[in-house]
Amino acid sequence: MITSMENPQVKRLARLFAKERERRKSGTFLVEGIRMFREVPRESLEGVYVSQHFLKEEGHKELLRGTRYEEVSDPVFSKISGTMTPQGILCEVKQKKWPWDDMFPPGRPALVLVLEAIQDPGNLGTIVRAGEGAGITGIVACPGTVSLYNPKTVRSTMGSIYRVPFLEAESLPSAVRELQERGVALYAADLEADLCYDGPDYTRPCGFLIGNEGNGLTKEAVALADGRIRIPMEGKVESLNAAIACALCMYEASRQRRKIKATP
Amino acid sequence: MITSMENPQVKRLARLFAKERERRKSGTFLVEGIRMFREVPRESLEGVYVSQHFLKEEGHKELLRGTRYEEVSDPVFSKISGTMTPQGILCEVKQKKWPWDDMFPPGRPALVLVLEAIQDPGNLGTIVRAGEGAGITGIVACPGTVSLYNPKTVRSTMGSIYRVPFLEAESLPSAVRELQERGVALYAADLEADLCYDGPDYTRPCGFLIGNEGNGLTKEAVALADGRIRIPMEGKVESLNAAIACALCMYEASRQRRKIKATP
Repeated sequence: MITSMENPQVKRLARLFAKERERRKSGTFLVEGIRMFREVPRESLEGVYVSQHFLKEEGHKELLRGTRYEEVSDPVFSKISGTMTPQGILCEVKQKKWPWDDMFPPGRPALVLVLEAIQDPGNLGTIVRAGEGAGITGIVACPGTVSLYNPKTVRSTMGSIYRVPFLEAESLPSAVRELQERGVALYAADLEADLCYDGPDYTRPCGFLIGNEGNGLTKEAVALADGRIRIPMEGKVESLNAAIACALCMYEASRQRRKIKATP
Repeated sequence: MITSMENPQVKRLARLFAKERERRKSGTFLVEGIRMFREVPRESLEGVYVSQHFLKEEGHKELLRGTRYEEVSDPVFSKISGTMTPQGILCEVKQKKWPWDDMFPPGRPALVLVLEAIQDPGNLGTIVRAGEGAGITGIVACPGTVSLYNPKTVRSTMGSIYRVPFLEAESLPSAVRELQERGVALYAADLEADLCYDGPDYTRPCGFLIGNEGNGLTKEAVALADGRIRIPMEGKVESLNAAIACALCMYEASRQRRKIKATP
């Protein structure tokens, strides 16, 4: 059992929680909780750490059957963990490198999100989760977007992080070019657009460009898009939360695709 | 200028930030930042506090013209403020008591949200903001829902807190009864429903019952509803974030109402 904060493994885990640089170096990230442990693809699992307390609780030994794990004393576990109320189980997981092709699964038209500079980790995680629900085929994060492996992002994906193809693009123009060359029509969510977001036909390969929480898309990004769309807002609302805007666009595409399927 | 943390006004402000009980007692709440100051209805403004630094910045004296304010030294201001990077302006604002009638504005059918037990302040604020955007006529919060006046909720409403009628109900059944007696058809967002959320006709007075983040609606709440709806989810997603679910339902109603208007 690990009982010291000076243990080199403990120090490394604390750094993995706190620092994106460390996560880049190791090519791994941390996830917390039983649900995230259950859903992690076994080939990606690099290590499992559990607190003393966790091991004593009913059913937890069975949960871990067949898994190699390291026991950590409660006070040390609390100090490593990123949350105020640690769940007692922590996994180190390999970062997955998704190729572009994974965004183009056979048999269904691509539906992608291109994020220009989403800064809030909770927003990004919520976008990934809602994206899986809406049936998107992938997300492209452009420079300026918070890391997918930020512990807060990871937590708010609720497991979707393991399943939604996610690429980091070198630049927004290169990402847009790649997608357009593969036949994806990209719509920029833009407060000043004339077209309502439920106007275009999203049953063909398509995607949405979504901008930063505070400023929306840059003009350069809007100019590269194939079309511009606007989510109507009543009252005095100036903009919607970025995750809400993403969800409305993605689910509108999803709604149209369901209707097509339902029509014989 | 206030320079001491021992100043009774400062102590009261710090308590207003930290404690719901204090906010109930005073019938006020705190908002931060220029935007929230600008949008506060003047008749609700109880006090304005600005940091030394804020007053020195360009344009800020003009912003405050005609407003009585209290200057606070920078270190004291930082300690009062709920955020890590205080914006230098803080207002105490009267809590508004909305009557039921405000949810039934003349000339348009009611569109309401009934929240069973939303616990995350950021979620609640995001719901209020998206609700204003979708054109809802009001929100009813049932016991167990986080306070609208929690500083994190206030912040994430982005000003919609001043404009969306918001009631705290004594109980969910009493809220449902009140709304149904006024002719509102209530749809429960329920993972096990057969009907898709874009199925019902939302152009007549209607509303949505939305449950807790972790557990969804209670069976009792679902049983009281006029209908049950489900947001389809692909992949392995078990549920959506509560604010996302609210936004999808509200914007579907909004979409249907726009279509009706557009049809001559």
